Amino acid sequence: MAQKSAKGKIFNDPVYGFIFVPYGIIFDLIEHHFFQRLRRIKQVSLTHYVYPGALHTRFHHALGAFHLMTQTIEILRNKGVDINEAEAEAVSIAILLHDIGHGPFSHTLENTLINIHHEDLSTLFMNRLNEEFGGALDLAIEIFNDDYPRHFLHQLVSGQLDMDRLDYLNRDSFFTGVYEGVVGYDRILKMLSVHQDELVVEQKGIYSIEKFLIARRLMYWQVYLHKTVLAAEQMLIKAILRAKELIRNGAALPMPHNLAYFFHKDLNEDNAETYRDELLDHFAVLDDFDIIYALKLWTKSEDEVLSYLSKGLINRRLFRMELQNEPFSEKDLQSVRQRIQNMKLFPADTIHYLLIKGKETNSAYSTSKDEIKILFKNGSILPMSESTDFDVPSKITTKYFLCYPKEAI
Amino acid sequence: MAQKSAKGKIFNDPVYGFIFVPYGIIFDLIEHHFFQRLRRIKQVSLTHYVYPGALHTRFHHALGAFHLMTQTIEILRNKGVDINEAEAEAVSIAILLHDIGHGPFSHTLENTLINIHHEDLSTLFMNRLNEEFGGALDLAIEIFNDDYPRHFLHQLVSGQLDMDRLDYLNRDSFFTGVYEGVVGYDRILKMLSVHQDELVVEQKGIYSIEKFLIARRLMYWQVYLHKTVLAAEQMLIKAILRAKELIRNGAALPMPHNLAYFFHKDLNEDNAETYRDELLDHFAVLDDFDIIYALKLWTKSEDEVLSYLSKGLINRRLFRMELQNEPFSEKDLQSVRQRIQNMKLFPADTIHYLLIKGKETNSAYSTSKDEIKILFKNGSILPMSESTDFDVPSKITTKYFLCYPKEAI
Amino acid sequence: MAQKSAKGKIFNDPVYGFIFVPYGIIFDLIEHHFFQRLRRIKQVSLTHYVYPGALHTRFHHALGAFHLMTQTIEILRNKGVDINEAEAEAVSIAILLHDIGHGPFSHTLENTLINIHHEDLSTLFMNRLNEEFGGALDLAIEIFNDDYPRHFLHQLVSGQLDMDRLDYLNRDSFFTGVYEGVVGYDRILKMLSVHQDELVVEQKGIYSIEKFLIARRLMYWQVYLHKTVLAAEQMLIKAILRAKELIRNGAALPMPHNLAYFFHKDLNEDNAETYRDELLDHFAVLDDFDIIYALKLWTKSEDEVLSYLSKGLINRRLFRMELQNEPFSEKDLQSVRQRIQNMKLFPADTIHYLLIKGKETNSAYSTSKDEIKILFKNGSILPMSESTDFDVPSKITTKYFLCYPKEAI
Amino acid sequence: MAQKSAKGKIFNDPVYGFIFVPYGIIFDLIEHHFFQRLRRIKQVSLTHYVYPGALHTRFHHALGAFHLMTQTIEILRNKGVDINEAEAEAVSIAILLHDIGHGPFSHTLENTLINIHHEDLSTLFMNRLNEEFGGALDLAIEIFNDDYPRHFLHQLVSGQLDMDRLDYLNRDSFFTGVYEGVVGYDRILKMLSVHQDELVVEQKGIYSIEKFLIARRLMYWQVYLHKTVLAAEQMLIKAILRAKELIRNGAALPMPHNLAYFFHKDLNEDNAETYRDELLDHFAVLDDFDIIYALKLWTKSEDEVLSYLSKGLINRRLFRMELQNEPFSEKDLQSVRQRIQNMKLFPADTIHYLLIKGKETNSAYSTSKDEIKILFKNGSILPMSESTDFDVPSKITTKYFLCYPKEAI
Repeated sequence: MAQKSAKGKIFNDPVYGFIFVPYGIIFDLIEHHFFQRLRRIKQVSLTHYVYPGALHTRFHHALGAFHLMTQTIEILRNKGVDINEAEAEAVSIAILLHDIGHGPFSHTLENTLINIHHEDLSTLFMNRLNEEFGGALDLAIEIFNDDYPRHFLHQLVSGQLDMDRLDYLNRDSFFTGVYEGVVGYDRILKMLSVHQDELVVEQKGIYSIEKFLIARRLMYWQVYLHKTVLAAEQMLIKAILRAKELIRNGAALPMPHNLAYFFHKDLNEDNAETYRDELLDHFAVLDDFDIIYALKLWTKSEDEVLSYLSKGLINRRLFRMELQNEPFSEKDLQSVRQRIQNMKLFPADTIHYLLIKGKETNSAYSTSKDEIKILFKNGSILPMSESTDFDVPSKITTKYFLCYPKEAI
Repeated sequence: MAQKSAKGKIFNDPVYGFIFVPYGIIFDLIEHHFFQRLRRIKQVSLTHYVYPGALHTRFHHALGAFHLMTQTIEILRNKGVDINEAEAEAVSIAILLHDIGHGPFSHTLENTLINIHHEDLSTLFMNRLNEEFGGALDLAIEIFNDDYPRHFLHQLVSGQLDMDRLDYLNRDSFFTGVYEGVVGYDRILKMLSVHQDELVVEQKGIYSIEKFLIARRLMYWQVYLHKTVLAAEQMLIKAILRAKELIRNGAALPMPHNLAYFFHKDLNEDNAETYRDELLDHFAVLDDFDIIYALKLWTKSEDEVLSYLSKGLINRRLFRMELQNEPFSEKDLQSVRQRIQNMKLFPADTIHYLLIKGKETNSAYSTSKDEIKILFKNGSILPMSESTDFDVPSKITTKYFLCYPKEAI
Repeated sequence: MAQKSAKGKIFNDPVYGFIFVPYGIIFDLIEHHFFQRLRRIKQVSLTHYVYPGALHTRFHHALGAFHLMTQTIEILRNKGVDINEAEAEAVSIAILLHDIGHGPFSHTLENTLINIHHEDLSTLFMNRLNEEFGGALDLAIEIFNDDYPRHFLHQLVSGQLDMDRLDYLNRDSFFTGVYEGVVGYDRILKMLSVHQDELVVEQKGIYSIEKFLIARRLMYWQVYLHKTVLAAEQMLIKAILRAKELIRNGAALPMPHNLAYFFHKDLNEDNAETYRDELLDHFAVLDDFDIIYALKLWTKSEDEVLSYLSKGLINRRLFRMELQNEPFSEKDLQSVRQRIQNMKLFPADTIHYLLIKGKETNSAYSTSKDEIKILFKNGSILPMSESTDFDVPSKITTKYFLCYPKEAI
Repeated sequence: MAQKSAKGKIFNDPVYGFIFVPYGIIFDLIEHHFFQRLRRIKQVSLTHYVYPGALHTRFHHALGAFHLMTQTIEILRNKGVDINEAEAEAVSIAILLHDIGHGPFSHTLENTLINIHHEDLSTLFMNRLNEEFGGALDLAIEIFNDDYPRHFLHQLVSGQLDMDRLDYLNRDSFFTGVYEGVVGYDRILKMLSVHQDELVVEQKGIYSIEKFLIARRLMYWQVYLHKTVLAAEQMLIKAILRAKELIRNGAALPMPHNLAYFFHKDLNEDNAETYRDELLDHFAVLDDFDIIYALKLWTKSEDEVLSYLSKGLINRRLFRMELQNEPFSEKDLQSVRQRIQNMKLFPADTIHYLLIKGKETNSAYSTSKDEIKILFKNGSILPMSESTDFDVPSKITTKYFLCYPKEAI
């Protein structure tokens, strides 16, 4: 810890013990209210409805990923990889801010609240901070956008074996209690190296990488795509969409002011730059609390659909979720549709808010994009998929879901 | 786990692994929206401003304490202590609901939002639930209120070595990462026994009890009364008090409706029964989210004090906190008072919202009330303080604090 | 814990916390000197030369596997699987004694010291104990030998997902510090069920099984077949073989009396029954200490090969080990042979004790024998390899090794 | 890790994760056969008879204490404490070798096998190594013997808050599974500082120090002085004393040659220097294995006392141990004496080998010698006992024991 200097602040982290943050720009960015907002955005959305400990935030995750980056820089330098001070600081800033564009409930509402990908929002935030900090984030932004020639720096921020994934797998395992997702991050970090500005893993780390891929796969199906979590998230999406529709139709729905902005303004990637400051000003004060507060208000809405969804979310009366490997047949759908109608609670034209179908796809590892590279003792370098007799879990698995009120039996 | 029956639900808990809840009244109570509200009340208020992992809730704590109770009942029965099914269920209900009367930010706002102690509110909630459940909570309420002759059952719920303390010490240690607070709860549970309906600890558990007391002491000074946590909590209290005053003076302060109820209605122990249902209806939908949302609104208040405190809390610009063993002198106060005035931000008559003084007292163990009893091998029973050559940490320690804006230098 | 009865003994186990052993035959078997001998046999032979914490014993492993069995029986019973008291006790005895036939340094010296497989020796021991205990082990022996119709009981003792594997993966991970080998044993146990007397895993346990297989694979290559561990073990085998040869040639080699018995007597599966009591009497007092003591004596042997190997083992001067996917060429061998000769330390006809070649094969999972079965929600049962889109790690991997003195450069 | 240089070796340690040892003199000392011998000496003697995981060695403890020293040096340097390279290396060597003079079964046989304290033997070994390494240990020896003016360096090796205690409390807790003994070593290390060449603890570390003292106290009574551990250790002492007496009386007792040396030669602090090389040569190959092997031989001794004790130790048939706060009365002794005589197994004049009485004293902290010093924020420094309202556990507790064969009922 505290390598470069004794001056800094120590955060207690149940996952890593202590996280040292040196005074300077890193510390100042953490203190910035843009970053403090991440304290009010849960890392894994509504997962705590299944795993009650999973209340950790994007703030904590960003600090954790920064911590791993600090360690990695030191390990690489000790192996003779030349990383100058400016690069070290820049890559640390890049990982610290990689998720700063996440909105309330992170991925769940990603394209529902605002039609802009969170990484693009992160870029908008970084540019704005760069102005505030007088250009001090130039190199960090270059690395984040993969415009810097030393590719491995970007790979540490965003790749198939980056500090982001290592931290979130560990952190999500820790707070959910699904310890099977724990990754031997310290061993993996020790195996990292750099060859011609590309990130590589030393040969003896192969088994740890296999384990890492399987842990990721497990976390997807056991946690991130857990059927009850999916049900809650789908309900949340539908509640927001229903509220949007009501507003479009002229209803005077009570809700936080800053949330209303996003309901009324049609923002997307094309106009994001135009409205940047206005957008950021509103986004920078938007968090999970606004959504939960709105849902609490809406439990009393006159709209049966919105109040039903809101009460379900607040009081944890979640939809039944069916998951299967094949798409659901029209017959299946028809049967559920009928049962929902039998509830006699909702207007006929609102059934698509209550009968939710969709699919989730997942692949723990991709062999089509920038693969993890293994450095063999003889100096050769091979992609992971060709480095082991183990079959990397690269198949894309699709699961189809059907989700509806429990009362619709 | 799952001893009595295979029918029930398993919760993942990072602290204990799995928590089994049998279907039946326990499960139904957990499903009740009164209990689900505890999901929105953090166990340790604003502690996460110092320990970012400490976001766990009263919901999780109640489940955990219930889990320890289940284990304890089994251990005691295996030692031949007769606990019938009705008693086992009742004491489990009592521990499950012991904190159901906690409001937003738990202890921090305990006498600020509403002038009724949380245990009395718990009793109000239990009585209401008892009506709903047709008297099924009769015995649980007796035990909770210590009206049941078998005293040890009450001691397991509320005493100097109860399931509540064992769970919160472990849980708070876990989520803060202050592992020194961890208590060997499994060893302690195994040492519990009952003698003439009084809870006792077998002699060989003495060292574990010493450790438990020291862990509790450490958690108090290192976590619960951490100076920065105290500063944040004092700011929150002052923000609420300022808002109350503004409202009393006729200001139209925006805030959640159910919060407003408690601002306008003067509730206390004398009239609690009279207004019970109205009170509970409002309280049952009040949680941390309302307070945080209100603070977010108030960051834009025209009142300089309220907006200053609210912005400080939302963006984590916390007051400076000084702690010492002696009361602060009038000279100390005068100096700080002057510095606050130099800030030229606040009306003169509001200084008491910004210059906060007070004291915290703590004792890890009390020798004056119902002591922990040790059962010696020769059959004799002595209070803990007479059972060991170790000095039990029973001194009452008082620390005086002074707390004010960081800008007041 | 302490399920059946409060009467019993609790063992502290850093892996599982507490292990409860009820008084009765289980306790009496643990107290028996046959079983106490396992305290002097390390679980993983010379692994501690690479992982210094790996000093745990077969005694501890057997207790741990017994503990998992106790939990499993309870879980299965709670699911309605009928297991009567006699079966529960028998399967517990079978797992407790499954390794009682292991000799010094377990697998390392398995066919070097005595030409009988350890499971056959376990059977000999069990039969002898059965005589002593008046037939009380009849059913345990039936289950151990897979002669009992309810196959799942045998599968819990010996199968691809048995209590043995679950315990040793966890325990070896724990004591080596290779935490990547940790298996979510508690989750796996909760997923076990029985269908028509066959062990099955419930569908939602599939990802845990994948993880278990990968953990096993990782432990093989990272720990059990670690190149330095292999080197030490090969040296130990060669030292014993050299000693045997010297004795065959009439040398008066000092060594423990009970070890000498196995050097002079040619025991094998054919004559094992004939010499059973004599064999067991000698084997029952043979342990790691005899071998280490002999090696210490042999460091002063006049035979250059034996003293060289013995000194290397005692002072941890281990051979260099080369591992590769292809067999070594005659040229490779010739080169090393020459370098050993250049050392001018050893008689020409002893080169095979110093130039050690061989191969290790491993497969984490077998699809050819009794596969792990998955029970799907629709009631169908499929072998693991057909239950997931994940490729089970069933390939047989072979690695060739070459091992020789470090001085032979 | 690996701060100064990437060149070195990494040890896996389940307690700390990884321990980095730089190539150079530290590595060479670890490779030396004097140090490798510590692999064959268990840290906590026969404690594994109660806590089966406690098989860890002095080798592992020395590595662990070295690791903590490395971290401490870095922390202190980051606080501006000037520690030059020579001092850093020397204090690291001193802690690495602090226990190198321990013999078989460490403290248990400390004055039984050889009448020289283990720290004096450590000094003898260090001096001999210093000769071998051409004076490279000069400074380390100065620090070890407290002859170097910068006192804090010695305090880190040997004091009331040294790396030795921090490591053994953690390590013994870990391997016994008595997790209550775990010490927040990382927090404590972070609180260390130096004032005028004296080690101090920063004020905010007070509660961690309290916890450390209580953990130490707990480990003493729960582990180190556990009654069954004491019984086993007393039996071992008596077995060795009986063997010595038999030899003195001319018996031809079989035993390892190097053990025999210590039975025949009367070594003590006065003649230690005279016989140094001879003594060290024999001691350097003496370890737990010799003693266990001897006990195995003696199970067949014709002497009833020696064979009884040896069989008891090998097969874990341990004496009954009674512990109390008062000395045992002559009446108590007489009663037990009679019961032993009733066993009719032992010659009349051997009763003192079978009826063992004695006392154990312990104090977790001493206020009479070099106290832990607390550095307050105002710059003042006070001894721990005056720094807190907590009563430091400095009382000397005495327990009297009486120990005899279980059959003597």
